[in-house]
Amino acid sequence: MSAVRPPYTLEQIVARLGGELVGPPDIAVRQVAPLDQAGPEDLSFLTGGKYRRLLEGTRAAAVILGTADRDSTERPRIVSANPYAYLARASALLNPVAPVEAGIHPSAVVDARASVAATASIGPCAVIGARAVIGERAIVGAGCAVGEDAAVGEDTRLHANVVIYPGCRIGARGILHSGVVIGGDGFGIAEENGRWIKVPQVGRAILGDDVEIGANTTVDRGALGDTVIEDGVKMDNLIQIAHNVVIGAHTAIAACVGIAGSARIGRQCRIGGAAMIHGHIEICDHAVIGAGTMVRKSITEPGIYDGFFPSLPHREWMKNLAQFNRLHELGRTVQELRARLEAIEGKSK
Amino acid sequence: MSAVRPPYTLEQIVARLGGELVGPPDIAVRQVAPLDQAGPEDLSFLTGGKYRRLLEGTRAAAVILGTADRDSTERPRIVSANPYAYLARASALLNPVAPVEAGIHPSAVVDARASVAATASIGPCAVIGARAVIGERAIVGAGCAVGEDAAVGEDTRLHANVVIYPGCRIGARGILHSGVVIGGDGFGIAEENGRWIKVPQVGRAILGDDVEIGANTTVDRGALGDTVIEDGVKMDNLIQIAHNVVIGAHTAIAACVGIAGSARIGRQCRIGGAAMIHGHIEICDHAVIGAGTMVRKSITEPGIYDGFFPSLPHREWMKNLAQFNRLHELGRTVQELRARLEAIEGKSK
Amino acid sequence: MSAVRPPYTLEQIVARLGGELVGPPDIAVRQVAPLDQAGPEDLSFLTGGKYRRLLEGTRAAAVILGTADRDSTERPRIVSANPYAYLARASALLNPVAPVEAGIHPSAVVDARASVAATASIGPCAVIGARAVIGERAIVGAGCAVGEDAAVGEDTRLHANVVIYPGCRIGARGILHSGVVIGGDGFGIAEENGRWIKVPQVGRAILGDDVEIGANTTVDRGALGDTVIEDGVKMDNLIQIAHNVVIGAHTAIAACVGIAGSARIGRQCRIGGAAMIHGHIEICDHAVIGAGTMVRKSITEPGIYDGFFPSLPHREWMKNLAQFNRLHELGRTVQELRARLEAIEGKSK
Repeated sequence: MSAVRPPYTLEQIVARLGGELVGPPDIAVRQVAPLDQAGPEDLSFLTGGKYRRLLEGTRAAAVILGTADRDSTERPRIVSANPYAYLARASALLNPVAPVEAGIHPSAVVDARASVAATASIGPCAVIGARAVIGERAIVGAGCAVGEDAAVGEDTRLHANVVIYPGCRIGARGILHSGVVIGGDGFGIAEENGRWIKVPQVGRAILGDDVEIGANTTVDRGALGDTVIEDGVKMDNLIQIAHNVVIGAHTAIAACVGIAGSARIGRQCRIGGAAMIHGHIEICDHAVIGAGTMVRKSITEPGIYDGFFPSLPHREWMKNLAQFNRLHELGRTVQELRARLEAIEGKSK
Repeated sequence: MSAVRPPYTLEQIVARLGGELVGPPDIAVRQVAPLDQAGPEDLSFLTGGKYRRLLEGTRAAAVILGTADRDSTERPRIVSANPYAYLARASALLNPVAPVEAGIHPSAVVDARASVAATASIGPCAVIGARAVIGERAIVGAGCAVGEDAAVGEDTRLHANVVIYPGCRIGARGILHSGVVIGGDGFGIAEENGRWIKVPQVGRAILGDDVEIGANTTVDRGALGDTVIEDGVKMDNLIQIAHNVVIGAHTAIAACVGIAGSARIGRQCRIGGAAMIHGHIEICDHAVIGAGTMVRKSITEPGIYDGFFPSLPHREWMKNLAQFNRLHELGRTVQELRARLEAIEGKSK
Repeated sequence: MSAVRPPYTLEQIVARLGGELVGPPDIAVRQVAPLDQAGPEDLSFLTGGKYRRLLEGTRAAAVILGTADRDSTERPRIVSANPYAYLARASALLNPVAPVEAGIHPSAVVDARASVAATASIGPCAVIGARAVIGERAIVGAGCAVGEDAAVGEDTRLHANVVIYPGCRIGARGILHSGVVIGGDGFGIAEENGRWIKVPQVGRAILGDDVEIGANTTVDRGALGDTVIEDGVKMDNLIQIAHNVVIGAHTAIAACVGIAGSARIGRQCRIGGAAMIHGHIEICDHAVIGAGTMVRKSITEPGIYDGFFPSLPHREWMKNLAQFNRLHELGRTVQELRARLEAIEGKSK
């Protein structure tokens, strides 16, 4: 992590990533850092007004700024219409992913009928099932299990201990973090005389290209059809995606979210942490769901939807809670008072 | 997944599973499918009124129907008192679980003092501890770890990367999905001068027969006595079962639920997704807990219990939330208005 | 689990752990057990008034009691100012952790550039990356993956299938349960033209000494700086700790909690199950957050904070919920009634 990498000059960065360079082109930077933590070899950034007060005191060698902030400092700077996206790219330039050696580790167990690209890397104690296909430059980490007939696309990386169930497909350039489980059985059970009979889950889980999934998140296979995660979806840790869910392209989902069976989420949605989406509903494109919010009915209009209660000091909360538990009664009391008031108002006219 | 399996005729299905066959007995089907997606080799189903409108247009070879719907179509059909359970069984017939070869994979590490049935299968890189017992036809997937003195019952399947801690017991015919952890230490800590001392967790986690547990769910071992999951319990993904919880037979629990320590859940309960059950309480048999509901006190009467707030558009929500945060005050205002109104009513009599 | 261990006499226990022994010193006990389940070889305990009624009927050989309860029984007893902490220590004495053999299992894959202490134990199929450091007496369980440049402190135990990402550091005497993932990428994405660009996560996750983490919990690495879990923090299962969170020393966090990015949690806080803490806020030392509570703003005063709704029977809940969805309107109605009432009060003066 701490290996010293060659620096980039601002000129080299702009040549690669665009943006307007204001200041000496030969200033060299090695790392990105927040304004208040940056040192003389760091490239810092200002992505929102909130931190503008830190601009003056920063020790950064240079700063990435938005167009509107172009002239708010004398420092060497790179001006971009989207400084946060610029930061992401500059950081990727300065922090290249450590290369992983191609080849199959001797301790890995690869079925003779699997197809592993020569440029792929299969880590120690990874297990690849029959007829599975591992694409060019894909990386399967230590202890992963890729089931029979599954496919992992080119340039996709499975970190250690990921499980891909049989028949599931991961697109290209994906990143699956440790503990992710793709294609476990959906929760399909039929009641019969007080007992549960398993409904076989015969669909698959299909992930598009450029999908990233955080640690210990689970995506179930479909009951009959498939569970589908479209291109460019980004998911955080400990999320549950149930059977036959469809998540539209470029939607982002924060940690601890649960999405129940057969829900259809639109494209470019944003779902806040710990939100819960009921099954068999549809969320339209561009919907924004607040953290801790439960969505129970379909959403047909883009916009922001909320449903959380921020904490209060215990005594205040308990007083409001007590009133909430009488809320129906309170509503009726108010109606009754209105009627009685109107009776008096009638008399006193 | 896509291997072509031999078809079943309707006559063969009814011979195996019962039900009334209405139509030609020699119609052959290969797969089950929803009414609107079924093709000419598919067996479809109508399990609720909601989809009846799809019955006419379906291309399915035949349909499973409830008794009341017996004559609602001319199509070849199988009539059953419980069409969803019938579907489950028919699907199991058409989608037999792929057989797994018996034997211990050479890369597995089985302690010499463990007892593994000759018909069991121990997958690649699985690890079986001393004195562990693996039953007849049990399947321990790739990368699983079964601790010392643990037991896995006959016909039980552990998918890849399941962990069973020492001393825990899994009954017969269970299914544990990838990433499940059975028997980790419960969260037992004692405070002393601002520090935490670990309370050893010396109980076990004991699972009955026919238990299915979804991916990445955790069941802690007991602190002193055992954590017990009774026969036929079905659990979804990412559920937390704390130490010394008891879950009664044939209860079903949806994803993302948390059940705190020493809670006792009855038999044949249904717990909705993301519900949270406090510790040291009892839920009676046949209780139904809604999704996203927090249960804080014991439930002694069967019935449905709820406690969720569905989302609203942001501005609406914030207006109600602001009022909620004044709710105690609002209640007092209404009481005061009532008193003042009564004063006037007294005068105007 | 059931191996018969040598008993301890009360005298031996008090010699080791302190406390006042009242009764015969040579009474021998083998295990700890609750009052109502204890047998004649068990040491039981009374840690709160709630169970005092069980004291009379217990069959325990002896009981641990608080100072105030010293004379509430004639039984052999050990009196301690903190009986629950005493119980924890006594149980640790009676239930020593099973020793694990030092050495590297032949099936483990340890990079030649890693440094593994001679007294450490590396389990079957564990994988240790280049330049990783495993401390004295540390135990790395079966199927764990410790990345390059990571460090595991002395006497720390990783149970089976834990993943430590490259560069992360775990202090001494830690316990990480199965499925824990330390140092996965934080959820950092920048939007550009409706697509997401990954923000490289170049920080680390750093855990102090004496940290325990429950099964399948995830702690992300920092985006730029580090994610920090200070000494003595105790975490339950299925918790999500996002990038750049700091958790102060000796804080305890129950299961299913989510803490969003860059939140700073104080020392000796207690966070209830399924609580959710928003990002970029600060919680002061000694704060207590109730179960199921969402914290959205910084907390600057120690105390108890709540925000949960306990369940109600379905019909009651729905009636209150309906009223809640009209709450803003109800507030306005009450204001209007007050104005009209005041008008009448004015007239009738």
